[in-house]
Amino acid sequence: MPQLLDDLQPHAALVEIARDFHRRGWMAGTAGNLSVRDGQNPASFWITASGQPKGRLDDHDFLRIGIADDRILERFSDGAKPSAETSIHRVIYQLFPEANACLHIHSVEDCLAAARGAADSTELPLPPLEMIKGLGIWEEHPAVSLPLFPNWQDVPAIAEAIRQRFTATPPVLPALMILGHGATVWGQSLQQAYNRVEIVEFIMNYLAHRPG
Amino acid sequence: MPQLLDDLQPHAALVEIARDFHRRGWMAGTAGNLSVRDGQNPASFWITASGQPKGRLDDHDFLRIGIADDRILERFSDGAKPSAETSIHRVIYQLFPEANACLHIHSVEDCLAAARGAADSTELPLPPLEMIKGLGIWEEHPAVSLPLFPNWQDVPAIAEAIRQRFTATPPVLPALMILGHGATVWGQSLQQAYNRVEIVEFIMNYLAHRPG
Amino acid sequence: MPQLLDDLQPHAALVEIARDFHRRGWMAGTAGNLSVRDGQNPASFWITASGQPKGRLDDHDFLRIGIADDRILERFSDGAKPSAETSIHRVIYQLFPEANACLHIHSVEDCLAAARGAADSTELPLPPLEMIKGLGIWEEHPAVSLPLFPNWQDVPAIAEAIRQRFTATPPVLPALMILGHGATVWGQSLQQAYNRVEIVEFIMNYLAHRPG
Amino acid sequence: MPQLLDDLQPHAALVEIARDFHRRGWMAGTAGNLSVRDGQNPASFWITASGQPKGRLDDHDFLRIGIADDRILERFSDGAKPSAETSIHRVIYQLFPEANACLHIHSVEDCLAAARGAADSTELPLPPLEMIKGLGIWEEHPAVSLPLFPNWQDVPAIAEAIRQRFTATPPVLPALMILGHGATVWGQSLQQAYNRVEIVEFIMNYLAHRPG
Repeated sequence: MPQLLDDLQPHAALVEIARDFHRRGWMAGTAGNLSVRDGQNPASFWITASGQPKGRLDDHDFLRIGIADDRILERFSDGAKPSAETSIHRVIYQLFPEANACLHIHSVEDCLAAARGAADSTELPLPPLEMIKGLGIWEEHPAVSLPLFPNWQDVPAIAEAIRQRFTATPPVLPALMILGHGATVWGQSLQQAYNRVEIVEFIMNYLAHRPG
Repeated sequence: MPQLLDDLQPHAALVEIARDFHRRGWMAGTAGNLSVRDGQNPASFWITASGQPKGRLDDHDFLRIGIADDRILERFSDGAKPSAETSIHRVIYQLFPEANACLHIHSVEDCLAAARGAADSTELPLPPLEMIKGLGIWEEHPAVSLPLFPNWQDVPAIAEAIRQRFTATPPVLPALMILGHGATVWGQSLQQAYNRVEIVEFIMNYLAHRPG
Repeated sequence: MPQLLDDLQPHAALVEIARDFHRRGWMAGTAGNLSVRDGQNPASFWITASGQPKGRLDDHDFLRIGIADDRILERFSDGAKPSAETSIHRVIYQLFPEANACLHIHSVEDCLAAARGAADSTELPLPPLEMIKGLGIWEEHPAVSLPLFPNWQDVPAIAEAIRQRFTATPPVLPALMILGHGATVWGQSLQQAYNRVEIVEFIMNYLAHRPG
Repeated sequence: MPQLLDDLQPHAALVEIARDFHRRGWMAGTAGNLSVRDGQNPASFWITASGQPKGRLDDHDFLRIGIADDRILERFSDGAKPSAETSIHRVIYQLFPEANACLHIHSVEDCLAAARGAADSTELPLPPLEMIKGLGIWEEHPAVSLPLFPNWQDVPAIAEAIRQRFTATPPVLPALMILGHGATVWGQSLQQAYNRVEIVEFIMNYLAHRPG
């Protein structure tokens, strides 16, 4: 086993992550989408094709997309379409030049944790668990929140809401939540983004089942 | 790994699905039954034999049944009997010519989700989660329900209740729930039916554990 | 894969069951014990040795015990001791000549389900789930209970309580529960006992998490 | 499969435990740390390097540390740093000469169980489950508690609090809990420590979900 996900060829790493997350119930059916910035062409990124079952991807189920203009730059079959949520990945890569990987999942715990707040909440306060260190927060009594966005059918509108909010107030955490939908997490490497997804899900699992 | 379940020989695909669902606790003991319409003879379908442990099926644990007349058309051993719930699969294939696969499971979350409604409910309202898109519903604030049927010992009576209700009012979702029992889900392909089972179970898991 | 557990050599089947149940959290640490009646010598049974981690058994971690007199008839090393709960298995084989396998596990759900009743309950009423059919109950609205026994340090005293109760009133179900401890399930074959454990755990999982 | 974890080379055993615990969600991201006393040099122990994803360790992700003086005695690469929580492992090896392995994990159930007590609790009372025997407690109605420590940023201060408390009052159980963080468990062998982690997590899972 290669030691880090980034030691794998990028498409193979995404296939492995998709199978792993599918097994955990975080990419049920064809849900979720995974992307990685292209090493040779950092103004573009590879993202999962739309509509493929995430437990059964192969190395050709990806398209390369221009970050600035949303153009399809490369794909392995003419019919392949990029994930419906590509616009959210684009905003993350535009806003955060240090982000090289972006992973979006759907989990039951994400939905349960967010549902325990008020319906119009714009943030999900995180409990002061040790695990928050894994998201880069090292304070004694951290009081941080996950930015919460409403879930609209119009995905580019969600992407635009993310852009406006994060441009006005850069996020403290490398993650955001869409209500009734799921988490999007980014990192400098695939391994870091993968680790952070595990940590966000640990915290959401706690919030989903906490007393009171 | 073949990319889609439908790239496998149909019996092999059903064996793989049964092992997968058994591992998740959706086919405990000998519970549940899986079927696929016969490609050569679309007026018939293959269904799991009765009484076999679902984690240990092999390619011969299936019988071919006539959709119109319920006759056993093919089997691999004389003693093999079709699943006790064959009549429900027949109704699905009769009512929905586009259905080519039908999967019935028993999950704890199915039972918990349905038990949180009134005892005489005839439908299980679904929460407005993003995941509902995976069942073909793309509205902004979807208000859809899973049809709920009582669990009678007399399985053909359940099948007849399904036929009457769906003939009067075609279902919006490709799935139904039997109270205290489990979900039945269908699709145009094995892969689609499999994906939809995952999505129904995601939603039932949410309903089983939602606050309030 | 052999189709049924009983197609395996009995010790190999018990090793496989132990690894399976350990993976599910039903045999944490060295918890639980598994036995099978000896085919050649039906007045004796093989049971797991005491103190072995259940995820890492091998074919020599078993002893053969006389059903009538509790004598060790066969073992693979001098130091091997039979499970501390051997006396409970003996009572099951004595009372139920048709029982050829007996499986005892510890699950969190067993403990949670029993803890939701009154502290001095002597039975655990089961909900009317379809799954109860897998325990041999085929009524329309089944009203059956799992016999509940207190958990004493003195295991032979538990065994004696089981004997007295089941002699006075033969059990309706092939299973019993020890409070704060776990389920014991038996069957005519290893496969049947294994299937029934899965079904009991399905029902306990429901009871542990049911609303109200 | 070697029968016991201690039959493996120690680094290989720790790699296997880390992969196992990661799969269960007890070492999400890079969380947790595992150590084993060095057989040749019992005044030192090997501990996981800091910052490695625990599902993907290899045999070189360990450093040897002096128990008395905290010195790094051996490592496989110059940049490797010992786990941030090395000081807690040191205290355990100092206080308990019979301890040869020490495993620290982060679990959602640990956090939930501890959160159900009062915020300033210094112990977590354990329920009288049979499983407590696996921690060496064989009383009829055991009334034991897991020592609970606050979670400070200053890990050596936690280690010092453990030393003072356990020097004043030797612990009854081979385990302790840090609030909002996770369990630390030790044993005479890797296998015993591993078994005890499973048992502590069984009990925490019960406490996290118990009624009332």
